[in-house]
Amino acid sequence: TALPVLDHGFVRVVDYMGDDAAICQAARVSYGRGTKSVSNDEGLIRYLMRHWHSTPFEMCEIKLHVKLPIFVARQWIRHRTANVNEYSARYSILDREFYTPAPEHLAAQSVVNNQGRGETLSGEEAERVLRYLRDDAMRAYDHYEEMISTEGQQGLARELARMNLPANIYTQWYWKVDLHNLLHFLRLRADAHAQYEIRVYADAICEVVRDWVPFAFRAFEDYRMGGAQLSATAL
Amino acid sequence: TALPVLDHGFVRVVDYMGDDAAICQAARVSYGRGTKSVSNDEGLIRYLMRHWHSTPFEMCEIKLHVKLPIFVARQWIRHRTANVNEYSARYSILDREFYTPAPEHLAAQSVVNNQGRGETLSGEEAERVLRYLRDDAMRAYDHYEEMISTEGQQGLARELARMNLPANIYTQWYWKVDLHNLLHFLRLRADAHAQYEIRVYADAICEVVRDWVPFAFRAFEDYRMGGAQLSATAL
Amino acid sequence: TALPVLDHGFVRVVDYMGDDAAICQAARVSYGRGTKSVSNDEGLIRYLMRHWHSTPFEMCEIKLHVKLPIFVARQWIRHRTANVNEYSARYSILDREFYTPAPEHLAAQSVVNNQGRGETLSGEEAERVLRYLRDDAMRAYDHYEEMISTEGQQGLARELARMNLPANIYTQWYWKVDLHNLLHFLRLRADAHAQYEIRVYADAICEVVRDWVPFAFRAFEDYRMGGAQLSATAL
Amino acid sequence: TALPVLDHGFVRVVDYMGDDAAICQAARVSYGRGTKSVSNDEGLIRYLMRHWHSTPFEMCEIKLHVKLPIFVARQWIRHRTANVNEYSARYSILDREFYTPAPEHLAAQSVVNNQGRGETLSGEEAERVLRYLRDDAMRAYDHYEEMISTEGQQGLARELARMNLPANIYTQWYWKVDLHNLLHFLRLRADAHAQYEIRVYADAICEVVRDWVPFAFRAFEDYRMGGAQLSATAL
Ligand SMILES: Cc1cc2nc3c(=O)[nH]c(=O)nc-3n(C[C@H](O)[C@H](O)[C@H](O)COP(=O)(O)OP(=O)(O)OC[C@H]3O[C@@H](n4cnc5c(N)ncnc54)[C@H](O)[C@@H]3O)c2cc1C
Ligand SMILES: Cc1cc2nc3c(=O)[nH]c(=O)nc-3n(C[C@H](O)[C@H](O)[C@H](O)COP(=O)(O)OP(=O)(O)OC[C@H]3O[C@@H](n4cnc5c(N)ncnc54)[C@H](O)[C@@H]3O)c2cc1C
Ligand SMILES: Cc1cc2nc3c(=O)[nH]c(=O)nc-3n(C[C@H](O)[C@H](O)[C@H](O)COP(=O)(O)OP(=O)(O)OC[C@H]3O[C@@H](n4cnc5c(N)ncnc54)[C@H](O)[C@@H]3O)c2cc1C
Ligand SMILES: Cc1cc2nc3c(=O)[nH]c(=O)nc-3n(C[C@H](O)[C@H](O)[C@H](O)COP(=O)(O)OP(=O)(O)OC[C@H]3O[C@@H](n4cnc5c(N)ncnc54)[C@H](O)[C@@H]3O)c2cc1C
Repeated sequence: TALPVLDHGFVRVVDYMGDDAAICQAARVSYGRGTKSVSNDEGLIRYLMRHWHSTPFEMCEIKLHVKLPIFVARQWIRHRTANVNEYSARYSILDREFYTPAPEHLAAQSVVNNQGRGETLSGEEAERVLRYLRDDAMRAYDHYEEMISTEGQQGLARELARMNLPANIYTQWYWKVDLHNLLHFLRLRADAHAQYEIRVYADAICEVVRDWVPFAFRAFEDYRMGGAQLSATAL
Repeated sequence: TALPVLDHGFVRVVDYMGDDAAICQAARVSYGRGTKSVSNDEGLIRYLMRHWHSTPFEMCEIKLHVKLPIFVARQWIRHRTANVNEYSARYSILDREFYTPAPEHLAAQSVVNNQGRGETLSGEEAERVLRYLRDDAMRAYDHYEEMISTEGQQGLARELARMNLPANIYTQWYWKVDLHNLLHFLRLRADAHAQYEIRVYADAICEVVRDWVPFAFRAFEDYRMGGAQLSATAL
Repeated sequence: TALPVLDHGFVRVVDYMGDDAAICQAARVSYGRGTKSVSNDEGLIRYLMRHWHSTPFEMCEIKLHVKLPIFVARQWIRHRTANVNEYSARYSILDREFYTPAPEHLAAQSVVNNQGRGETLSGEEAERVLRYLRDDAMRAYDHYEEMISTEGQQGLARELARMNLPANIYTQWYWKVDLHNLLHFLRLRADAHAQYEIRVYADAICEVVRDWVPFAFRAFEDYRMGGAQLSATAL
Repeated sequence: TALPVLDHGFVRVVDYMGDDAAICQAARVSYGRGTKSVSNDEGLIRYLMRHWHSTPFEMCEIKLHVKLPIFVARQWIRHRTANVNEYSARYSILDREFYTPAPEHLAAQSVVNNQGRGETLSGEEAERVLRYLRDDAMRAYDHYEEMISTEGQQGLARELARMNLPANIYTQWYWKVDLHNLLHFLRLRADAHAQYEIRVYADAICEVVRDWVPFAFRAFEDYRMGGAQLSATAL
C-alpha cells in the first residue's frame, strides 16, 4: 500500500514505533507523582506542542520506503536527523525512470520570488521544454546503458557512468526518523516556499502522520503550519 | 519484566522497531538488482560490522525505561544520539531511594589507573564508608522532605530543595536509541574502563540486545568487544 | 575575563569562529550570481531569522569555559548539539565549593505552576533552609575527604566517594556550540520557565552573544525571545 | 589559496578554531588537579586516539569552501555531523562546468568488487565514453540555458530546468565540521573503498589537517588509517 507521488515515485510505511499515547507516556514520566494539571491526552499533546516541549515527540519513530527523483533527494537529505539507506548506483544499475512534470506544473521562473515559480508555461514553449526533458533523459540513459555494457567491450564502471544521468532520474531509500524531526521536516517541506516536487512528498507524509498520531498532527497543524510568528516589534 | 540492576535500579524494554532482518533489508536496498555476493543474513551482518557500514544498524530502534542513580545518569546522558525523557525533580518529589554499594564493590582508588578502582575495602574502613553513605543520604533526604513540607511553613521550591540530595539518589527515564548508537554505547560502557555502576546497566542491555538481534550482537561481540585495534606501527 | 555567575560560577569565552559577516557570507553562497534582494547584512540576517533559515547561523561557533553547580549541569547537558569536556570526578578530586542561594532567591514552591517558584521564603524558615544546605554540604564534603584519604587506610575510589556529594557542588566544563543551537539554548534557558539558576548563565551568555554577533542577537531577541507564536485557531 | 581538485573543483580553508594544544587543553580539564601521567601533548593525543576518547577532538573546528561535482556532493552530504550551505540552483543559475574524468581514471567496472573499478578503458571505448560525457553535458546545458531564457518566452523556473543537468555538473558549498567528525569522514573517504572522485577531495583535506593539527593527524594515520581491526576470533 504505497502512496503514489509524482509520475513514478511513492511513499510506503515500513514500520512504526509509538503513537499519541507513547508521547503522553514519556511526557508523564517527567511529572511522576506530581499533580497532573493536564490530564487528557489531546490536551497534554497540545500543551507540549505549544510550549516547544519537543522531546516527548521524539519517542515516536517511523520508517518509510521512498522512491523519488534525485533533485528531490538532494533537498530531502539535508535533514540530518534521520537514518538513511539509499540505492547504490555504484553497485547497481539505475532504472530508466525519469520525472517529467505534468503540463500544469511546468511553471515559469517567478518574477517576484527569486526562489519560486510563476505562471504555467503554455503552447510551443511548454512543448519544447517537455521534449528537451524527455529526449535528453532518454539519450543520456541510452548512453549510460551503452557505456556500462560489457558486450564486446570492457564496460565503464557504474559509479562513473551514472554521472551522465540527469537529476530527474529516480532513486530509492529507506528513511527513518522520529516524530519531532519529521514534523520539523514537514513544516519546512509541506510549506508554500518548498519546491512543488518535494511538497507533494511532504503532503503524502502528512496523510500518513494524520492517521498515525492524530492528536499530534492536529496540534502541529494548528501551532506550526497554520500558526504565525510575530516579532516583538510587531507585538 | 524489568531486569533488576544495582540495589534499586532496573532496565525494562518498552518497545522495539526492526530486527536482524530489518538490518539486511536496508542494506539490500543499496544493492538493488546488483549481484548479491553475500546472500545469507548473518554473513551480510558480519560483513557490515567488519567494514563499519553502520547506517543499516540505524534502522533498528529500541526504547528502554531505566531507573538509575544520578551519578550513573550523568555519565549515560553524555551519549547524545538518543532520545530522553527524565523524571522532573522540579515538578515532582524524588523517592527516598539511594544506591549503596554492596560490600564487594566498595573499592579503593586504583594505584595504577587514575580513573579506576583497586582492591576491595575491608574491616572498619568499609564499615565507616557504608555508614557515611547511608547516614548522609538519610539526613539529606530528611532535610529535603522538611524543606519542601508545606505544613506550618511556605515550603521550599522542589527545584531548590533537590540540590541537597546526593548523587546516589535514583532517577528514571525513557531512553530511545538506534542499534548502531546503542552498540557504540555498549562498546564504551560494557568495557572494563567504564565505572562498575554503569557497566552493570550496559551488561543488562547486552542481554536484551542478544535476544533481540542475535546476529548483530554476535558480530558486535566479535569485531568490537572482543576485537583489537592495531596501529600501523604495531603492524 | 570570566563573567561571574551565582556564588562561585563563571562563563568565560575561550574561542570564537565567525561573526555576523560569516553568517551572510554563507547565506550568500546560496544566492550566487542571483539577484540580491536583501543587500545589507542586518536585513539579510533578519530575513534568515524570520524565515527559520537556520543553517547560515551554524557557520559561527563559540567555545566557553563554564563553572556551574551539578544540578544546573544536568539541565544544560540535555542540549545534545554541543561538544563537551567535563572535569572528571573519577580522575580528580572535586573542590569544596557549593552553591547556596542568596536569601532573595530562596523561593517557595509555586502554587500556580508546578514547575516553578513562588514567593521568597523569610524568617526562620529561610534560615533553616540555608543552615541545612550549608551544613549538609559541609558534612558531605568532610566525609568525602575522609573516605578518599589514604592516610592510615586504603582510601575509597574517587568515582565512588563522589556519590556522597550533593547536587549543588560545582563542576566545570568546556562547552562548544554553533550559533544556531546556542540561540536555541538561550531561547529555552533565558526564558521565564527556566530555573533561575540556569537562567543566570543564559543571561550572561546573552551578553557575550550580543557583543559577538550584534545583528544576529538583535534579530533573535526580536523574533524569538520577544516574539509570539499564534495558533491557526487564534488567528 | 585554494587546493585544486579534479578538473574544476577545489578545497579552500575559510576558517579554523583550535589546534593540537586545544585538544589537550580540553582533555586536561577532565584531569583537573589529578596526576598527569601523560604529560606531553603528542603523547596525550596519541593516548586519546588509541582509546577512542573522541570528545577532545571535537574541540577543534574547520570551515571549508568546496567546489565539487554533484555526484560527489551526494556522497559527501551523507555525513550528517557537519554544517552546510550550498549554492542554490532554485535561486541561481548553475555554471557550465562539468567533471570529465582524465583518461587514466576512465575505469571499467571491477569484476571482483561490485562497488569498484577495474582496469582503465582504452582505445575506441574510452573515446566514445568521453565523447558521450562531453556531448551530453553540453547539450543538456544548452537546453538548460534555452529553457530558462526569457528572451521571447516566459522562461522555465530554474528549479525545474536544473533537473535536466547531469550529475557531473559542479556545485559549491561551505562545509564546517569538528575535527573528530572530519577524521571519521577522512577514514571513510580517503580509504581505498571510496570512489576515486571523492577520495581526491579527502586526500586534499588530509594535507590541510596535517598542517593544522600535526599531532592529531599523525595519531589518526597510525591508529585509524594504517591500523587494523582484528576480530576476537582472529585473535
Ligand atoms: C565506501 C562506502 C560505500 C557506501 N555505500 C552506501 C550505499 O550503498 N548506500 C547508502 O545509503 N550509503 C552508503 N554509504 C554511506 C554511509 O552509509 C554513510 O551514510 C556515510 O559514510 C556517513 O557515515 P556516518 O553515518 O558514520 O557519518 P555521520 O553522518 O557524520 O555520522 C557520524 C556518527 O554520528 C552519529 N549520527 C549522526 N547523525 C545521526 C543521526 N541522525 N541518527 C543517529 N546517529 C547519528 C552516528 O553515531 C554516526 O556514526 C557508503 C559509504 C562509504 C564510505
Ligand atoms: C523549562 C524546561 C523544562 C524541562 N523539563 C523537562 C522534564 O521534565 N523532563 C525532561 O526529560 N526534560 C525536560 N526539559 C529538557 C528538554 O526536554 C530538552 O531536553 C532540552 O530543552 C534540550 O532541548 P533540545 O532537545 O531542543 O536541544 P538539543 O538537544 O540541542 O537539540 C536541538 C535539536 O536538534 C535535534 N536533535 C539533536 N539531537 C538529537 C537526537 N539525538 N535525536 C533526534 N534529534 C536530535 C532536534 O531537532 C532538536 O530539537 C526541560 C527543558 C526546559 C527548557
Ligand atoms: C571510560 C570513559 C571515561 C570518560 N571520561 C570522561 C571525562 O573525564 N570527561 C568527559 O567530559 N567525558 C568523559 N567521558 C565521556 C566521553 O567523552 C563521551 O562523552 C561519551 O563516551 C559519549 O561518547 P560519544 O560522544 O561517542 O557518543 P554520542 O554522543 O552518542 O555520539 C556518537 C557519535 O555521534 C556524533 N555526534 C553526536 N553528537 C554530536 C555533536 N553534538 N557534535 C558532533 N558530533 C556528534 C559523533 O561522531 C560521536 O562520536 C568518558 C567516557 C568513558 C567511556
Ligand atoms: C525553502 C527552503 C530553501 C532552502 N534553500 C537552501 C539553500 O539555498 N542553500 C542551502 O544550503 N540550503 C537550503 N535549504 C536547506 C536548509 O538550509 C536546511 O539544510 C534544511 O531545511 C534542513 O533543515 P534543518 O537543518 O533544520 O534540519 P535537520 O538537519 O534535520 O536538523 C534539525 C535540527 O537539528 C540540529 N542539528 C542536526 N544536525 C546538526 C549538526 N550537524 N550540527 C548542528 N546542529 C544539528 C539543529 O538544531 C537543526 O535545526 C533550504 C530549505 C528550505 C525549506
